[in-house]
Amino acid sequence: MSSANTVLLAHGSGGSMMHELIESFFDTYNSDELRQGNDAAVLQTSECTDRIAFSTDTFVVTPHFFPGGDIGRLAVCGTVNDVATSGAVPKWLSVGFILEEGFSLVDLRRICASMAEAAKEAGVKIVTGDTKVVNRGQGDGIYINTSGVGVFDDAGAKLGAGAKLGSAQQLELDRAQQPTLGGAQQPAHNSAQQPTLGGALCKPGDKILLSGTLGDHGIAIISQRESLSFATTIESDAAPLNHLVQAVLAAAPNTRCFRDPTRGGLASTVNELATQSNTVFEIEEEAVPVQEQVLGACDMLGYDIFHVANEGKMIAVVPAEEAVAALGAMRASRYGENAAVIGEVLELSAANSTTPKAYVKTAFGSRRILDMLTGEQLPRIC
Amino acid sequence: MSSANTVLLAHGSGGSMMHELIESFFDTYNSDELRQGNDAAVLQTSECTDRIAFSTDTFVVTPHFFPGGDIGRLAVCGTVNDVATSGAVPKWLSVGFILEEGFSLVDLRRICASMAEAAKEAGVKIVTGDTKVVNRGQGDGIYINTSGVGVFDDAGAKLGAGAKLGSAQQLELDRAQQPTLGGAQQPAHNSAQQPTLGGALCKPGDKILLSGTLGDHGIAIISQRESLSFATTIESDAAPLNHLVQAVLAAAPNTRCFRDPTRGGLASTVNELATQSNTVFEIEEEAVPVQEQVLGACDMLGYDIFHVANEGKMIAVVPAEEAVAALGAMRASRYGENAAVIGEVLELSAANSTTPKAYVKTAFGSRRILDMLTGEQLPRIC
Repeated sequence: MSSANTVLLAHGSGGSMMHELIESFFDTYNSDELRQGNDAAVLQTSECTDRIAFSTDTFVVTPHFFPGGDIGRLAVCGTVNDVATSGAVPKWLSVGFILEEGFSLVDLRRICASMAEAAKEAGVKIVTGDTKVVNRGQGDGIYINTSGVGVFDDAGAKLGAGAKLGSAQQLELDRAQQPTLGGAQQPAHNSAQQPTLGGALCKPGDKILLSGTLGDHGIAIISQRESLSFATTIESDAAPLNHLVQAVLAAAPNTRCFRDPTRGGLASTVNELATQSNTVFEIEEEAVPVQEQVLGACDMLGYDIFHVANEGKMIAVVPAEEAVAALGAMRASRYGENAAVIGEVLELSAANSTTPKAYVKTAFGSRRILDMLTGEQLPRIC
Repeated sequence: MSSANTVLLAHGSGGSMMHELIESFFDTYNSDELRQGNDAAVLQTSECTDRIAFSTDTFVVTPHFFPGGDIGRLAVCGTVNDVATSGAVPKWLSVGFILEEGFSLVDLRRICASMAEAAKEAGVKIVTGDTKVVNRGQGDGIYINTSGVGVFDDAGAKLGAGAKLGSAQQLELDRAQQPTLGGAQQPAHNSAQQPTLGGALCKPGDKILLSGTLGDHGIAIISQRESLSFATTIESDAAPLNHLVQAVLAAAPNTRCFRDPTRGGLASTVNELATQSNTVFEIEEEAVPVQEQVLGACDMLGYDIFHVANEGKMIAVVPAEEAVAALGAMRASRYGENAAVIGEVLELSAANSTTPKAYVKTAFGSRRILDMLTGEQLPRIC
């Protein structure tokens, strides 16, 4: 491949070649902030806000292109979803590239175009970036970091003078202060108030929802690496889920938290949430949506479906009384058609450091422990 | 080195080993947001704000440890400085690690401690992060991305009903609307108003200030790579300059812009600014502060001092009437003791794409063109 088509060390020098490379992508991103060429983007929120959400993720997936997506789409969706879990509306992304000397510029353009498309679907803007080049043998083509900022739509929030939502403690105080209406306790949130979400808020009795089929991304990746073939090509589920999250929040305003089960799969997620909230998470095996061929691939490869990564799925933990509404909202949303209630949060009766945090209830009614992944199942899955 | 002391692929799996590794650093960072363990940090601004600044940078410097600093200090200072150039107060950082299998955990701890120290000095918090592990041979020990968010202190801004600072155009409108006071035009900014800064605002007649000696970082790095020895060990100048920036803004509220001359050196910076503002930048060679041994090293290595990277220096472009005040504020600030006025912004008389954007005026009064670096002088300088 001629040098004009591949990344050179000089593309990372801070000089003219780097500027030419970067500027050649401005039209792809269509971002005024990038075109302005300053060192930081100054971003106007539409309303005065006193809270923002901030997250980061780095993408080192191999191969770069796979059925259902590529590293660029992953990089946008992954960070959009992480920001969305806070209940904030994701607005702006930064992009940091590490390019290996020799990487194909054709592939780079394809990846950037994919990022622009995913950003457009999610309704976010790429506003600031950086490009570094490393020597051949000290990278793997391309690694991408994205960081994301989201804002809370605080217009219309009625919290009383001086009150601000911002912590689990404040949430409890608000609940205590809400007047009762008839025989029912007014929920601490209504559609005008802004949620405080977090794993620590999960409570015994809450329902665990999953927005769709498990394991698609991980199996799509491994199928490419091992050149396995299946009757149907399994595709990565990489997708922006911020719209789905907002729909669920509107329908179930007392949602405790959202979490996307990426590396380490559903098992990592439910163990993290159980630890944060000092509860136990129980998953009903038969209720978990999963494609036949994904399960078959897991059997063949010796993988536990609960350890396989997902890139377009969201867990929501909601109070039991809002589960139906939350599920309806998920199923009505793009990417949520196969959503299901997959389990329940239970009380942690005997608390010590070795007590299992999560279980799977099998079809026979027995329970098995659902541990976090201990070793390395599949490196560079995202 | 035993496996307990080095990074393993499993540290990137999303499972228990990854969680143990990450949690072992919570005390180093002393960040409540990190301890909460949610996917995004929710950050409270102290006042209601409608503007934030956002920037990102990735650090791939080699070696990881060098006189005057390390990759961790660089990663914090670099992004703090980028955010600071907008005039915002940097508040929060994200950190994304790419660790190579086999990287020393002792080195990782040292780097994290260095980051925590730099963050403390800068007054910023590390609030969200990510860790990925790549196979041996597909990284170089450690790469670090940091993204930063800053806020503008908008309290007391008096702009008139409905006016918002946010663009060069709005700035001009504000200036036209300001009442005259006696014979003097009231400046468009005062200490209660918030600056709009940007390279596009530079004007003929403005003065160019540099906060200290040029080339220290680049020469410190190259001296380690080539195992060169000098009579005095040159140290990297990596430092957080946000406090210096705020001091200059307070003294010279009509400052046009700040920029830190990192990769590609001062030459890249002045060419970028000249291009953004459609002007010409002229640097007076004799006025530029530089250490003797740095100049000597450049001569020996065949480097142009203006192309060598800096990691703790700031350029400020200010109206001529505010240059003395700005210089005073720089010199009174930590890291600005050797600040100097090094040049002037000139009118661009004949505008075409080949017209040089920047010149150096030599001691003899002659001018030479100051081009951007074209090739690669020193890869992986930051």
